[in-house]
Amino acid sequence: MKPFRIAIAGLGTVGAGVVEILQSNADLIQSRTSRKIEIAAICDRDQDSDRGVDLSCYEWAGDAHGLADIGGLDAIVELIGGSQGIAYDLAKAALGKGVSIVTANKALLAHHGFELASLAETNGARIGYEAAVAGGIPIIKALREGLAGNDINCIYGILNGTCNYILTAMRETGADFEDVLKEAQEKGYAEADPTFDVDGIDAAHKLCLLTSLAFGVQPDFKAIETKGIRDITGADIRAAQKFGYKIKLLGIAKRQDGKISQSVEPCLVPADSSLGGVEDSYNAVFVEGDFVEKVLMTGRGAGRKPTASAVVADIIDLAKGLDVPVFGVKTDKLAKPVWADAGQIKSCYYIRAAGDAQITEEMEQVGLGALTDKLDSPYIMRVEDL
Amino acid sequence: MKPFRIAIAGLGTVGAGVVEILQSNADLIQSRTSRKIEIAAICDRDQDSDRGVDLSCYEWAGDAHGLADIGGLDAIVELIGGSQGIAYDLAKAALGKGVSIVTANKALLAHHGFELASLAETNGARIGYEAAVAGGIPIIKALREGLAGNDINCIYGILNGTCNYILTAMRETGADFEDVLKEAQEKGYAEADPTFDVDGIDAAHKLCLLTSLAFGVQPDFKAIETKGIRDITGADIRAAQKFGYKIKLLGIAKRQDGKISQSVEPCLVPADSSLGGVEDSYNAVFVEGDFVEKVLMTGRGAGRKPTASAVVADIIDLAKGLDVPVFGVKTDKLAKPVWADAGQIKSCYYIRAAGDAQITEEMEQVGLGALTDKLDSPYIMRVEDL
Repeated sequence: MKPFRIAIAGLGTVGAGVVEILQSNADLIQSRTSRKIEIAAICDRDQDSDRGVDLSCYEWAGDAHGLADIGGLDAIVELIGGSQGIAYDLAKAALGKGVSIVTANKALLAHHGFELASLAETNGARIGYEAAVAGGIPIIKALREGLAGNDINCIYGILNGTCNYILTAMRETGADFEDVLKEAQEKGYAEADPTFDVDGIDAAHKLCLLTSLAFGVQPDFKAIETKGIRDITGADIRAAQKFGYKIKLLGIAKRQDGKISQSVEPCLVPADSSLGGVEDSYNAVFVEGDFVEKVLMTGRGAGRKPTASAVVADIIDLAKGLDVPVFGVKTDKLAKPVWADAGQIKSCYYIRAAGDAQITEEMEQVGLGALTDKLDSPYIMRVEDL
Repeated sequence: MKPFRIAIAGLGTVGAGVVEILQSNADLIQSRTSRKIEIAAICDRDQDSDRGVDLSCYEWAGDAHGLADIGGLDAIVELIGGSQGIAYDLAKAALGKGVSIVTANKALLAHHGFELASLAETNGARIGYEAAVAGGIPIIKALREGLAGNDINCIYGILNGTCNYILTAMRETGADFEDVLKEAQEKGYAEADPTFDVDGIDAAHKLCLLTSLAFGVQPDFKAIETKGIRDITGADIRAAQKFGYKIKLLGIAKRQDGKISQSVEPCLVPADSSLGGVEDSYNAVFVEGDFVEKVLMTGRGAGRKPTASAVVADIIDLAKGLDVPVFGVKTDKLAKPVWADAGQIKSCYYIRAAGDAQITEEMEQVGLGALTDKLDSPYIMRVEDL
């Protein structure tokens, strides 16, 4: 069988990891694919840095825009990132020509997923994005294929490793958010500009894709209520602990009464629950379906090697001819969801006001408002008794 | 597209569950498959019992042996069970005619997996067996596809829900094995003849398939060292707890120095580890790969609905034309493994002798023998610090 020919756009951490895995596990991958994976071209603005892998045997393309014009290409591995600009242009150009895309770019798909999925469908191309959510954990495959017989009720995900690392460190050291963030930045666990991570935007990008897959709806990033972890204090962590809980930044998608709610927010989860046990930079996704009941998948949510593992799984799938719709069903079957009003979600709440913390009975936010109106700048988190 | 036509052989708990999910989620499944799943025939010795699903619209086949002769069949769902007899004959007859098999039958594949995979390959048929290991957890798909870029180092699995339920109950109630077993039998969590479960045979069947997939070797059930949970006392459970451990029946497959070891045995795992947190009848599989690092998947390992979820995932895959070799690589690439001598596995051990328990330093079983030779009927378990 002729080789499966790919081009890699973007040779940062993950791109270099993809080259590394394709080189070091080449024989294994060929025996599992029954086909050779051939890197026809690589592309990055920086052609000089040492990335810990031998790139001398590959052809450099001068410009990512031109990759879609290379003849006989089966897929482009887009690892440039960003929801606009080159990544978006390249994806459109490739899919328009029937060349498949494999990507780790959650922002791109959260914002343009429906358009790109439609383009892929029209042109007989496919989009692999296992690496876009929860790193090495094969959660996209699980939702799109492994649990395909189920009507999914809800998804809870610890989807951002940086936030989970910070929250774990805050609990273990007793330090405040700003101090732990600074330390995480020094260690390379957090970006110099941590906004996307700590404000929940990265987790929301990922949740957006999970929601679409789980419920068969068009991805809609704007419909996600997003709250980050900046306002969590050491006192909150200790109070949660006293009540038997840990604080986790959760992406939550639920269907209730035909409406879907999506939110990313710090929540209290029981310390001894399966999600409560997911610490440091680990990610986890908890899915409940009407037949499978509860499934939890845990693993490394980021990093060169785990993310490369997911990218290569997609490449192997495409090379084997796997044909699954981008969001589980064809785009004309993707419903426009009715979103639930976040205020209508019944939950227990954690309220901190002027240093004093308590957990309420189960109530809607509407009722909660009456309670917190009289308090001095209250801070509120949902309690999720998983 | 024309419907995907299946016959279901065996309408016990799981078979009825498969009919239920195909009925209740029919629209959902059709939109995900882009194709209708049609039950062309059903078969069971008992045609009268009420199984909680409407079977009146299906054609009863008089005899399972005849199912392979039905014209225009795409797959037979074999839920009869057993490594010999009808299940084996039916699988051979179907695959020989190019009709695919979907099965929850771990015993069949543990004993005849290589022969059946070869037969499937020769005749362009496929074998789906997601339901054979860990119930609803999509672990076969994860190993065969989602982690396909990885060289797998080791697998640890809690693969038998009955044993995990018994061990959890022993710890929580302080009762001894025989009493908990009796209660589990009364509640329906354990069979009247519990041998396959409590002696580790069921877990060994499942491990055999995981080992083959993970390491690309021919399944070899006989190469598994199997020890059950009958000899574990309440005192062992309490001693483990004192040392900070829980006792779990683990299926373990590892590759070290080019040799593979496979065993099913009760082990001590840290109480606060991810596997230590898997309780009651839940199953879990922990996989370590060279790129993905650590992945853990947890869920219901048995039962009508979770197992049916896995069966239907396989049916959907086949209906979509998914073509993946049975054990991850073509049969001619499946190596004959070199098995490690169990005595050469370096580990810490738990030793109970005459009522007094201790944990050793890390040592090989060879060295362990010298230590335990002098003891009065010692009971030994491996300590796995995951």
